[in-house]
Amino acid sequence: MKFCSHCGSSRLEFRVPEGDTLPRYVCAACATIHYQNPKVVVGCLPVWEDQVLLCKRAIEPRLGLWTLPAGFLENAETLAAGALRETVEEANARVEIGDLYTVISLPHINQIYVMFRARLLDLNFAPGPESLEVCLFDEEHVPWDRLAFRTIARTLRNYYLDRKLGEFPVHVSALEKRPVREPSLVASG
Amino acid sequence: MKFCSHCGSSRLEFRVPEGDTLPRYVCAACATIHYQNPKVVVGCLPVWEDQVLLCKRAIEPRLGLWTLPAGFLENAETLAAGALRETVEEANARVEIGDLYTVISLPHINQIYVMFRARLLDLNFAPGPESLEVCLFDEEHVPWDRLAFRTIARTLRNYYLDRKLGEFPVHVSALEKRPVREPSLVASG
Repeated sequence: MKFCSHCGSSRLEFRVPEGDTLPRYVCAACATIHYQNPKVVVGCLPVWEDQVLLCKRAIEPRLGLWTLPAGFLENAETLAAGALRETVEEANARVEIGDLYTVISLPHINQIYVMFRARLLDLNFAPGPESLEVCLFDEEHVPWDRLAFRTIARTLRNYYLDRKLGEFPVHVSALEKRPVREPSLVASG
Repeated sequence: MKFCSHCGSSRLEFRVPEGDTLPRYVCAACATIHYQNPKVVVGCLPVWEDQVLLCKRAIEPRLGLWTLPAGFLENAETLAAGALRETVEEANARVEIGDLYTVISLPHINQIYVMFRARLLDLNFAPGPESLEVCLFDEEHVPWDRLAFRTIARTLRNYYLDRKLGEFPVHVSALEKRPVREPSLVASG
């Protein structure tokens, strides 16, 4: 943010507004406070018999890696509607959105992942413009080392554990910044 | 949004960018696409023995009406941390955040409410700058006709029903725009 979107001034200050507790972009010309808040990524885990539907990403980040259908929630959209839309966009797949399943905070990138379980309604799926391939996977063939995001790996791991137990509670968790290996430790390791 | 926050140009167009499906603010000068997404409101339902903690709002909207501690999730914050922070800010109350409880989509105002159950840890609470009063209420004294938001009424109603049943599942729902009474029906009623 370099200019005020309200008055066009470049006199933006990053400071704590009066009565607030956190720094914000404040316009010194028109006094508009520009709040910035986390975004919601919404998606689903489409299941067909014993298989789950994964999409191979055609776009960055993580081009060529596998993910569940998910993307940014849009204005004027419910969470379930967003999950349904993303599944159509990425996999041309028809699903029935089921229960809420994983809710994962990613504070270092200002995102909240919200994933639903879903029932795939037919096998007429196909890659959308953001996917290279869309495939059903048995548990033993899930490409664990080629998954795009830790949120997706966590959601799939929860699913396979819960499926054994026969219960699918909502899992609420957080993922912090991926730990960086210290060069000294790597070198001495 | 009247000016591009990236280059300061006033040449903003509201149109569907190439490869997209929804209209966005697009800068005709520098081509930046300005996405706008729903915000998360996070809070909790603090319980002390048989009572719940409510705050009387000192600010608009709904000044003077009662609510649960809740507010916009901030960048770099997990959902649980946001619920904890709002409870300190609005009620100077110490709580232990418990299980996720209600998740309510409000598509007409681009908000997602995320409410946790919580255990109030002591009775040393007091109004923060955004509250006029903070009180504990028995079920029969909850000011149902003086609640600030439908999300809060729904969360409290769920709570009192679930408390009778002894189970507190996550409730996922949506609230659409409040229906407007048609004048003709009102007149003929």
